[in-house]
Amino acid sequence: MLEEMGKKAKAAARSLAKATTEQKNGVLIHIARLLHTRQAEVLAANQLDVAAGEQAGLSAALLDRLTLSEPRLEDIRSDLMQVVALPDPAGEIFDEKTLPNGLHVRKQRVPLGVLGVIYESRPNVTIDVAGLALKTGNAAILRGGSETIHSNRALVAVIHQALREEFLPADAIQFIDDPDRQLVGELLKLYDYVDMIIPRGGAALHQFCRENSRIPVITGGIGICHLFVDESADLQAALPVIRNAKIQRPSVCNALDTVLVHQAVAQQFIPALVECLAADGVTFRADEGALSVLNGQADGVVFPAGAQDFDTEWLSLVLGIKVVDNLAEAIEHIAAHSTAHSDGILTNNPENARQFIAEVDSAAVYVNASTRFTDGGQLGLGAEVAISTQRLHARGPMGLRELTTYKWVIEGSYHTRP
Amino acid sequence: MLEEMGKKAKAAARSLAKATTEQKNGVLIHIARLLHTRQAEVLAANQLDVAAGEQAGLSAALLDRLTLSEPRLEDIRSDLMQVVALPDPAGEIFDEKTLPNGLHVRKQRVPLGVLGVIYESRPNVTIDVAGLALKTGNAAILRGGSETIHSNRALVAVIHQALREEFLPADAIQFIDDPDRQLVGELLKLYDYVDMIIPRGGAALHQFCRENSRIPVITGGIGICHLFVDESADLQAALPVIRNAKIQRPSVCNALDTVLVHQAVAQQFIPALVECLAADGVTFRADEGALSVLNGQADGVVFPAGAQDFDTEWLSLVLGIKVVDNLAEAIEHIAAHSTAHSDGILTNNPENARQFIAEVDSAAVYVNASTRFTDGGQLGLGAEVAISTQRLHARGPMGLRELTTYKWVIEGSYHTRP
Repeated sequence: MLEEMGKKAKAAARSLAKATTEQKNGVLIHIARLLHTRQAEVLAANQLDVAAGEQAGLSAALLDRLTLSEPRLEDIRSDLMQVVALPDPAGEIFDEKTLPNGLHVRKQRVPLGVLGVIYESRPNVTIDVAGLALKTGNAAILRGGSETIHSNRALVAVIHQALREEFLPADAIQFIDDPDRQLVGELLKLYDYVDMIIPRGGAALHQFCRENSRIPVITGGIGICHLFVDESADLQAALPVIRNAKIQRPSVCNALDTVLVHQAVAQQFIPALVECLAADGVTFRADEGALSVLNGQADGVVFPAGAQDFDTEWLSLVLGIKVVDNLAEAIEHIAAHSTAHSDGILTNNPENARQFIAEVDSAAVYVNASTRFTDGGQLGLGAEVAISTQRLHARGPMGLRELTTYKWVIEGSYHTRP
Repeated sequence: MLEEMGKKAKAAARSLAKATTEQKNGVLIHIARLLHTRQAEVLAANQLDVAAGEQAGLSAALLDRLTLSEPRLEDIRSDLMQVVALPDPAGEIFDEKTLPNGLHVRKQRVPLGVLGVIYESRPNVTIDVAGLALKTGNAAILRGGSETIHSNRALVAVIHQALREEFLPADAIQFIDDPDRQLVGELLKLYDYVDMIIPRGGAALHQFCRENSRIPVITGGIGICHLFVDESADLQAALPVIRNAKIQRPSVCNALDTVLVHQAVAQQFIPALVECLAADGVTFRADEGALSVLNGQADGVVFPAGAQDFDTEWLSLVLGIKVVDNLAEAIEHIAAHSTAHSDGILTNNPENARQFIAEVDSAAVYVNASTRFTDGGQLGLGAEVAISTQRLHARGPMGLRELTTYKWVIEGSYHTRP
């Protein structure tokens, strides 16, 4: 069955690659329209998932993630219209040159082909991914979670109607309508038809894909993120940056996990930091240096850091805190404990900023800003399909351009190689 | 053992990433110098491999590939000096912008990290890969063939001396000095330390890597290449292009495998083509259309094409030949049989050229030129580490830039996300 889906997706991808930007935008606009006219049907399907989730005893947080509502559908439609407004990278020409022998050489961006996307509870991902894929001329095979199967069926029916009515192949977006987990393993082996696997989920899903896929996988989305408070930092200004990075949305990958504090400012800064964030419900895992500064204050809020604490992505209101001797020790700590997602320095010393940028090799390296900016929307990509922490193809937020590859186009006058 | 190598390589990569272009070039120049002063030692080691190869009954072609000589070492040194002359992509800034909120965002090219390179008999690859890796600040773990183990030991000793004497870590280039084949499988699982696997060898090696690697693999180097002779082609000029693509070096991946001929010119062109290339020792596998044009002439040179012939990379003086009704059929044939390496059209009709470029999605798409130009040196990259036919990260010839990734650098004034 999956092989059949792969073949159809590959054929659809070839048609889509020939579609104009207007045609592709037309499908996105039509999906947005149908999400309005077929809203009752989509919400009713979603209610089946919510009811099943309640019966299965899903947590309130999970139930919230899988619930659709009129305003949420409105948001999804507005996101789609934002993607419509972005430029289409497919067809872009770059690295153009004429060689001394007269050959005219250029690179031309083309769609990647067929995306395999494996994701969990949030049904909005179905429309987000379909929108980004179609805008760039890619086909996609979607594997949503079993807990959203009714919602996804309804959303995919909308996408199919839009594709058909805009005269593009419905097979461009296919949906594995079977909760059997074995099918994920089969999808990962379809390398004749699928060009890139994007897992959107926790560390276990990423590891499973890396270990079992024969198709290139974009791993990422796991962030143990650091901010280093340099001795030259504006400590007043540093506090709200750390607070923003930690508490604005603690459950996501670009939220802060560890603060490193230069020893010269530890005595002054750490008690203020603890006081400020404790008011928001943050608890701390402190190394010996930080504990000795606090000197037993803040019981019940500050705990000694355990052996694994600096290697933990908290995803909650917990913050590691450690005193370092200098910039070099901060950089070493980050090299040893970061997942190379988002790490920053707070400093008023340009030379230290320069050294931090040069030596910290994370997907996003910050100077005097919150790690929460590692996001396609925030960084001007308009949307993102994933945040890559691997090193090939793309790093950090992946938008439309990262769903393309290129071909070399070489034009001559009956040239032969000497 | 391999895990230990991986750890050391990762540490060495961090040092190399900080090295200046001058330091990195210094190592390459020093390697070139030592290949001269330690030439006797290198050639003596190579003689051990050649003698062992003779005893093992290796073919003359294989023995030739593994043999080093004074002029060949001279060529290797000259290639190294060409890499020295190329610009260093590491550190390049691109996509720089200031967002409306004042955040300054840019991307900065950085080395990929640690390369795992698996290759066969040619010992020059050891120096080529080390040169490209070091120039871009990458470390590498090399796994050469057992038939060149003495040569590789001597060459790696030269590389290590150069690294040490230029004060860079010798661990930057490591060599798996053990012919045990199981170690290849272990290398493919070292994803904590190795960032990219480059197999340089036949289809079986590429398949083994794709099926067993947990690290991203650059597959490629397999080319079933096509040229389509359009009805508008200058047939006189087309002949030498096809001849060049087929016979200049038939054993390589960018050599021509199949000629497609428009039916309107088949009668005129095919007999001339067969006559021309038969003189060079080429034999043909012809479809029914081509056979009927030839009408039984050219016995012993033209054979009916078998079921698999249009899916075969010939790597020898064999050429498939097929008559097609029109451009669309040529494009369909290429989509079905090409390995997406190098495919071209010979035409004087700009609209047909445009359609061919738009619809043929190979790593290199040609108009009026030989497929033999798909080569890093020919296309102005100076050198190449591989020719990718996969779609992620890089397609076609991969030079220095393709051995880098990028990081996002984001600078603010204590910015928080609203």
